[in-house]
Amino acid sequence: MIRTIEWTDAGVVMLDQKRLPAEEIYHTYTDYEGVAEAIRSMIIRGAPAIGVAAAMGVALGVKNAAAKFTSAKSGSIEELDREFDAICRVIAATRPTAVNLFWAVARMKAVYARVRPLGSETIRNALIDEAIATYHEDIEVNRAMGRAGQHLIPDGARILTHCNAGALATAGYGTALGVIRAAVEAGKKISVFADETRPWLQGARLTAWELAHDGIPVTVITDNMAGHFMKKGEIDCVIVGADRIAANGDVANKIGTYSVAVLAKENGIPFYVAAPVSTLDLSIPDGGHIPIEERNPDEVRVIQGIAITPQGVPAANPAFDVTPARYVGAIITERGVVRAPYEESLRALAAQIV
Amino acid sequence: MIRTIEWTDAGVVMLDQKRLPAEEIYHTYTDYEGVAEAIRSMIIRGAPAIGVAAAMGVALGVKNAAAKFTSAKSGSIEELDREFDAICRVIAATRPTAVNLFWAVARMKAVYARVRPLGSETIRNALIDEAIATYHEDIEVNRAMGRAGQHLIPDGARILTHCNAGALATAGYGTALGVIRAAVEAGKKISVFADETRPWLQGARLTAWELAHDGIPVTVITDNMAGHFMKKGEIDCVIVGADRIAANGDVANKIGTYSVAVLAKENGIPFYVAAPVSTLDLSIPDGGHIPIEERNPDEVRVIQGIAITPQGVPAANPAFDVTPARYVGAIITERGVVRAPYEESLRALAAQIV
Repeated sequence: MIRTIEWTDAGVVMLDQKRLPAEEIYHTYTDYEGVAEAIRSMIIRGAPAIGVAAAMGVALGVKNAAAKFTSAKSGSIEELDREFDAICRVIAATRPTAVNLFWAVARMKAVYARVRPLGSETIRNALIDEAIATYHEDIEVNRAMGRAGQHLIPDGARILTHCNAGALATAGYGTALGVIRAAVEAGKKISVFADETRPWLQGARLTAWELAHDGIPVTVITDNMAGHFMKKGEIDCVIVGADRIAANGDVANKIGTYSVAVLAKENGIPFYVAAPVSTLDLSIPDGGHIPIEERNPDEVRVIQGIAITPQGVPAANPAFDVTPARYVGAIITERGVVRAPYEESLRALAAQIV
Repeated sequence: MIRTIEWTDAGVVMLDQKRLPAEEIYHTYTDYEGVAEAIRSMIIRGAPAIGVAAAMGVALGVKNAAAKFTSAKSGSIEELDREFDAICRVIAATRPTAVNLFWAVARMKAVYARVRPLGSETIRNALIDEAIATYHEDIEVNRAMGRAGQHLIPDGARILTHCNAGALATAGYGTALGVIRAAVEAGKKISVFADETRPWLQGARLTAWELAHDGIPVTVITDNMAGHFMKKGEIDCVIVGADRIAANGDVANKIGTYSVAVLAKENGIPFYVAAPVSTLDLSIPDGGHIPIEERNPDEVRVIQGIAITPQGVPAANPAFDVTPARYVGAIITERGVVRAPYEESLRALAAQIV
């Protein structure tokens, strides 16, 4: 099993996704600032994994703060409130696009508010339990998504995926790759084209690594090859993950997803999005309201430490784009598969009692 | 001026396009096998530049062969014929897609046939003159293309280009970048988005280098960002080069061009192709007949010497794709700008007396 993130007594352990596939290195973070920096620098990435990391980061911050209070026997609950707010603020400011981050922080805040009267020891334990629960739930949610979504995948399908929406983007199993894994577990013969996904190469480095790890046939292509293979009839469907889904079904996901969706539509190929309900943001009417993170242009200009562009030439680096709902054939969630009109189907899904 | 390729007494001199922009290194090739290897390994690339290199390679081979004959005073013309055939075969086998290569070899063959009765000394000089003529003509052709095409470019245009169809892809000035240069020379304010163009990074390395060299504003983006910027309304038109254009107007060009064309159509943005008449191949009815070169997958798997994919994971590496004519708003040539229906307009263009 791939160990993306784990809560341990020593701290929050993460597999360093910047170093894969060359090296398999684990870091142990002992304070919330370390977890925040790991999210910011993309040691861990992928919307659901960011959510789990955020929950664990908050829990870690409160664990340290509560320990301080307990040993000093001097802290007031108001001081802990202030520390908790600061922790949540730092964690929430790490990345702007994936809504799972804010969902996880809100969830921790709700628990904090509930157990606040019960003292720092109880607060500490409740937040740690909640963080660990988000971890286990995420794996369960992905497995449910896989079971629901694999029916969309025909036997023998050649599937294109973009970026990494796999075990490494979640607590385990994956969203888009979870659907692929479920199809394989159902006995279907599946092969995958992985867009390399510049600039960060999540496809070439991470998706290729985890599919090879599981023995699922994968071929890496550059992002600009996807259209060519679609036109040649070598791709049967597309499945990607999501960082945020607006009320109308517009999907923010890794930069390049929009292009893949347009090319799929032009070639009559179904385009599916696999994402947990925690990725829905029904508070915004459409994708125009999703903040798109602009990252350091050196992620484009420098590959593995080597500059590829002439000195002084600027580069743009939007990390995400928005795919309008009209390109999305279906959204696969742990509560089932929904289709257009998304205003209605997503609202019904969110209201569903689990 | 950018010196892509040059005929000198010492041999054929080429700027090494594998090393740009980090290093500006020139190689001097003294035999045709060296020129063939330079084309094959993409020290020189770009359809028109490949044509000039092929002509110079053939001339260099005949120069060396003729010298041997003259000094030995023993060679028969039939022996020179055989050497000439071998030279042409080796040069023609270097790369399959750009038709300019075959056009140049055919042109050298025609000169050879015409001057064959006049002896090895004359053959040698005639072929060298012809090779140098293809060089000068190519620059003239590009300038004419620029004059014809720049009328399509509005003042203030933000232009997307893919790969490098510039001075480095030609004897000088460029096809797509020639049109951009002509628009700038006409006093228009132009800025360029350069797709980085994986796997070989012609956009990030070469287009960025030559536009910066000329002081034309350029921003590098990854290939998967082009659609995002089109959707945001930040791109006014697209201009690319071509490696081969079929009788119906289907265009083979660098992998990813098809995707850019589909995205341009979807966003209502004009998509233009700039190419000399030597890039037309009216012998084939459509793009389905254009051979697409499949290059070494390590060009995808390894960037600047560093492996980005896990060991043993395969990659695909088609070097070109075909953009159906229905996506092409206009084809810009040295004889003027033509539009659909291309069967008629291209035939008329090819028949035009220059």
